[in-house]
Order: sequence, then C-alpha cells, then structure tokens
Amino acid sequence: MKKQIVILGLGLIGGSLAMALRSFEDYEIVGVDRDGATLAFAREHAAADRVTDDAGAAIQTADVVFLCLHPRGIVDFLTAHRDRFKAGALVTDVCGIKTAILEAAQILPPEVDFIGCHPMAGKETSGIFHADPELFRGAHFILTPQKGNTPEHLGLMERIAAHLGCRDVVKTTPERHDAIIAYTSQVMHILAVAVCDDPDLFQCRGFEGGSFRDCTRVAALDVPLWTELFSMNAPALTRVLRTLEDNLRTYREVLEAGDPAALARKLERSAARKRQMNLE
Amino acid sequence: MKKQIVILGLGLIGGSLAMALRSFEDYEIVGVDRDGATLAFAREHAAADRVTDDAGAAIQTADVVFLCLHPRGIVDFLTAHRDRFKAGALVTDVCGIKTAILEAAQILPPEVDFIGCHPMAGKETSGIFHADPELFRGAHFILTPQKGNTPEHLGLMERIAAHLGCRDVVKTTPERHDAIIAYTSQVMHILAVAVCDDPDLFQCRGFEGGSFRDCTRVAALDVPLWTELFSMNAPALTRVLRTLEDNLRTYREVLEAGDPAALARKLERSAARKRQMNLE
Repeated sequence: MKKQIVILGLGLIGGSLAMALRSFEDYEIVGVDRDGATLAFAREHAAADRVTDDAGAAIQTADVVFLCLHPRGIVDFLTAHRDRFKAGALVTDVCGIKTAILEAAQILPPEVDFIGCHPMAGKETSGIFHADPELFRGAHFILTPQKGNTPEHLGLMERIAAHLGCRDVVKTTPERHDAIIAYTSQVMHILAVAVCDDPDLFQCRGFEGGSFRDCTRVAALDVPLWTELFSMNAPALTRVLRTLEDNLRTYREVLEAGDPAALARKLERSAARKRQMNLE
Repeated sequence: MKKQIVILGLGLIGGSLAMALRSFEDYEIVGVDRDGATLAFAREHAAADRVTDDAGAAIQTADVVFLCLHPRGIVDFLTAHRDRFKAGALVTDVCGIKTAILEAAQILPPEVDFIGCHPMAGKETSGIFHADPELFRGAHFILTPQKGNTPEHLGLMERIAAHLGCRDVVKTTPERHDAIIAYTSQVMHILAVAVCDDPDLFQCRGFEGGSFRDCTRVAALDVPLWTELFSMNAPALTRVLRTLEDNLRTYREVLEAGDPAALARKLERSAARKRQMNLE
C-alpha cells in the first residue's frame, strides 16, 4: 500500500495543497471534506488521488495529515480525533496562527508527531473553486518545530516546501510567529477593511490607482476565518494596531503643523527604512 | 513645420509620456530637462524626437506643453514663463494635486488654454531610467476642465488618453479631485510609510506575504515630490487620515472587547462594502 497524505479540508489552501502534492514523491493524496460541492469539484478536477467525506476513517491509515480547517476547526478536530491517528504519523496544519494550534496539539498521544506549519500564501478569494497548485510558489514556508519532532518528519516538511516551490523554510516558535504575523499579515487585513469603512468609498470610482487597489485587495475577506484568526491572536494584534495608530497620528500632526521640512525629514526616515528592508 | 508637443520634465511620468506619445498622430515630441544624465538617457533611448535643456525656447513654438515637474516647479514655471507660450497653445500637466496648479494657471494670458490633467499611473521608482511607454495602460486619465477650454483641446486630451491606453477619461473639479485623491492615493502612501515605521520592520523578514508587500510597495517614495503633494493638500489629507485613525481604533476596540460576534459583524460590513465596490 502506498504511503498516504491526507488533506483535511479542501478550501483554497487545502485544495491548492492537494493539487500541488499529487506529484510529490510516491504518496497517495487523499482529500477530505464535508461539503458536497467541494468534493464534486475535487473529483472532477482530480484535485487528489481520492476524495472522501469520512475524516475519521481517512486519518487512521494516513502517514501525513494536513489540517486545513479554520483555527477552531483544527482545535476541535484534534480533540475529537486524538486517538484515531496512526502511530508514527506526522500531523501538521496550514493555520495562520500557531500558539493556539500548538497548545491544542498537546492532546495528541506521544506516538503522533505534530509540526506546526504556515505557508504564507493566499488569495482574496476562498474555496477549492479558486485553488491553484502554483499558489505556494515564492511563499515563505514557516514551521514551528517542537522538541520530539523526528528528523525524518522535519526533512519531509522541507521536501514538501521545495516541491511546492516555496521561497524558503523559516523555523520559529509559535509565540514569535504570532507576534510577527500580527504585523505582517493581520494588520494588513485590518487596514484593508478599515480603509473600506471610509464614507467616501463609493465616491472614489475613477480615482483609484495601484496603491489603493493593492491596499484594499484583501478587504473582501472570509469573515468566519478571519474573525477566528484575529480573535485568537488579539493581544499581539491590538499591540501592533496601537503602534500603527500612533505612527499615523504623528504623520497627521506633522501635516497639521504645516512644516514641510519636518515632513520631509520624517518621510526620508521612513523611506530609508523601506529601502533598507528591500524585500525583493 | 510639424505640430509640437513639448514634454517639460523627463522624469518617470514625463519620460514615459514622451515615449508613449512618439507614435501619437503627426506631432513632433520635444523633451525638455535640465539634468544632463536624463537628457543623455532620453537621447540614447530615443524617448523623444528631439531633446533640449532650453525650456524657454521650446515652449515658444509648442502647440501643446505637458508640465511634468513637481508641483512647486509647475507653479514657479508658470509664473516665470507666462508670456512665452504660443498664442492658442494648450498647456497641461500631470500633477497629483490640482487646486494649487489650477490657481497658478490663472496667471496665463487668455490666449493660452490650460487643462489640468492627472494620469493616475506611477511606480515605486522615479526618473526616466524607469520610464515605460506602457505605464498609463489601464489608468484613469483625470481632467479638470475649466470655462474657456476649447472643444478642440478637450478632444485632443481625449485622443491622447486613448493613445496612452488609459482606461477612461474622468472629468471633475480641482477641489473634488484633491479631496478624493487624498483618500485613494495620498493616504495609501502615508499608510505605507507609517507601516514601515513599526519598530519590528527588520524582524519581519521571512514572514511577509502578498498583503505586506502590496501595502508597503510605495513606501520608498520620492521624498521632495511627496512632501509637496502632501503639504499642498494638507487639509483634505489630514481629514482622511483622521477618519482612518478612527476606523482603525474602532477595530482595535472591538478586538479588545473580546467579542467575536461583534467583530464578525463589523468585518462582514466592511467586506460587503469592498465586494460592492468591486473595483475590477
């Protein structure tokens, strides 16, 4: 029998992952979802070698399980199915927050290995209908390894990242992940929705340029998913939000002071930070 | 003698405009700049039919003059050269603010026609070295016509917009332009620099995704240019900034209240606005 990777939850991320992993080594890819339309789409588009709605059965024979559910769904699934995973299996996930997931994974028996994972890829749409095996190309593949993870499983995750076309594998702690992601991802999404709350939103047709489209691109977000991601990382997120509010206020104050030289100095400092950052 | 379009200032926008207009009808395109390296680059890359550093001479024979300088540069140039434009000429510009420019243009003699223009295109780089004749493709081409503009000149601007590949021609008043642009463009740039002011900026390598790259893309901005654009539109800009600060604060407060249902309702409302906006 072939080794199996079970992808649990065939949404945008899970569906894309299944499609991308179909050509990974000699694993059989099993897709699991409860939604009929999702399963039908996955079957029609051969998103996995096999699809099923029976998660409990699927994980019993799985060598690797990717939990691609919403955060609470992952926590609940681990609790409900803790004893059904195969001994020696690797369980991992794709969730955008890590501390709560790693805490929930403590419930697993010692013979099941859990490695937290967050491939930093996404789209402003959701569901398998928008899935794309190329979704992860160029993305950071973040892992939060813990004591007891086997070198074989860590090596497997590295090979998966390479197969997906990820830019690199970044290893960190769950706490550090959540603190930084509050800044690099969560606040960007809060910004996008807050910009759309401006009363002039619908007056601005015909006046948008690239910067407006870019900033608001992610505003039509998946509300249940992001409600959980934000709520489960609220302390870090509110800290970053407060810093951003302060930074915006100081820009407003220098504008109100009517001192172009001071404004230029301030802009020079920020622009220099961006150039130094040089993300490309 | 062929009709002439003079492009005054061969930066990113002026350089791109010159390149794009070389194939426009039967006009001769004359590029003007004071910078030797810019002129040399323009010559080598045939960015215009002819280049010169003598602005005063060039505008005397020009049928159309595009002022592609920084805002204060445009104001100063109009004041210094008001009597050198050819009678019947069209003078226009590409500046990102319009009220101050249109006020300055009042100084022109009645036989010179001024139409304010703002093609909403740009890049996070500056200078002719990054110029691209395709820069304007898909962009809004905003005009602020005034009483006395000739139908011939308005028609000419429409044909130029079409030739550049602009998405549409949007006509408005200078005041409305500046109020809306404070929201759709200027605040996006303040956001980008304010996000880069976060003390964790340099800790976030390895954790950036598309939303962070998109939001901070424009942060390494042209400081002298944006200092003028912001300063000369400060009342509108500070008003929009205050609204954004309020909208961010209410998001932070609902997060701090620890009420996921209230957060979900708020996100649903913002996301619905974005979907309704549907900029694509």
